[in-house]
Amino acid sequence: MRIAVLGTGMVGRALGTGLVRLGHEVRMGSRTAGNPVAAAWAEQLGPAASAGDFAAAAAFGEVIVNATAGHACLAALRAAGADRLAGKVLVDVSNPLYASGERWAGHSRSLAERIQRAFPEARVVKTLNTMSAAVMAEPSRVDGQHTVFLSGDDSRAKEVVAALLSDLGWTEESMIDLGGLGTARGTELLLPLGLDLWKALGTANFNFHVQRPESTPFFPVSYS
Amino acid sequence: MRIAVLGTGMVGRALGTGLVRLGHEVRMGSRTAGNPVAAAWAEQLGPAASAGDFAAAAAFGEVIVNATAGHACLAALRAAGADRLAGKVLVDVSNPLYASGERWAGHSRSLAERIQRAFPEARVVKTLNTMSAAVMAEPSRVDGQHTVFLSGDDSRAKEVVAALLSDLGWTEESMIDLGGLGTARGTELLLPLGLDLWKALGTANFNFHVQRPESTPFFPVSYS
Repeated sequence: MRIAVLGTGMVGRALGTGLVRLGHEVRMGSRTAGNPVAAAWAEQLGPAASAGDFAAAAAFGEVIVNATAGHACLAALRAAGADRLAGKVLVDVSNPLYASGERWAGHSRSLAERIQRAFPEARVVKTLNTMSAAVMAEPSRVDGQHTVFLSGDDSRAKEVVAALLSDLGWTEESMIDLGGLGTARGTELLLPLGLDLWKALGTANFNFHVQRPESTPFFPVSYS
Repeated sequence: MRIAVLGTGMVGRALGTGLVRLGHEVRMGSRTAGNPVAAAWAEQLGPAASAGDFAAAAAFGEVIVNATAGHACLAALRAAGADRLAGKVLVDVSNPLYASGERWAGHSRSLAERIQRAFPEARVVKTLNTMSAAVMAEPSRVDGQHTVFLSGDDSRAKEVVAALLSDLGWTEESMIDLGGLGTARGTELLLPLGLDLWKALGTANFNFHVQRPESTPFFPVSYS
């Protein structure tokens, strides 16, 4: 599959690398063409990896992964172009990580919802935003069972994303479909706790697991 | 030990009952004396349980558990009286569950911090606020390992609270000391996700577990 990864930070690079290793073609998008981080990343990974500006990446990708910084999301996606996002699955792994004074953004409405509202034809699925970049792309870095959440209004889009997650090593049992995109608010708000845990545990190789009865209905989500 | 539980809701009743069964004397506090819910609760549990207004409960308790609703916390604690809280361990299990429009309160500063600031002589420890009332008091309702967080600026107060948690059935391995009271912000923000999970799983018998390497330093906290 041809996948665009928007953003050249740790999250974009970790996911991009993981997806290339799985056999996908990945184009990393950045604000301007010729971004040296994206170029170095692509060169290291060989012909399946490429780089371009946000628009070029979005044009290339059948699936778009938004791995840009929270404060830059909307501008990045506007640069990618609404027409190049229309009808495509947009995997939003961003977090509203921008402190304005002591305030975290994204409180009253999730970034994912704001993105969906700004780009009504994109099929936004929020996922993977509750763990470190390394764990996103390589869940086996954490022993035992742990959880990845999905939020989105488009069931078919969630199935596509679930298949990608499965490729990355996420088991069906590890996935929890929280429901509509409004539930992204809850996962986005995990960020402050995640940062505190990183500090307290001295490692980013941890993840949240939802411990619950085996018989719980509606779970695991069946993406067949 | 003599313990005050402020609040007559599900959380207050579940914790109060659990503490009485463990052999503690518990006085449930409410806004006015003669609250029928508190009276019924006390009568059901026998001589170790009693009820009174917030001030009477606070005067009674060597340890104070704040189980009042988020929007009512500060008024309840003011009614309890700063002098009756001074020097005592104040276990804050509240969550900022009051929607004002689409906004959750407690975003930029935790309730726990606001409580500590308003009552500088109380020894505030935030804990137990990340699960259902039933699980708080009876962790064995959830199979497998799961986590309870502690946040607070007073180490000795956290030791006292950890011993109480241990009495309730929380193992030392299940406790994560996140650090200072500022970390309560992160656990308070878990609430929207918890509510979404409750809906998605169809049960409140779940809890978060932090899956991490066994060798992680600073963990588990040793409360000896």
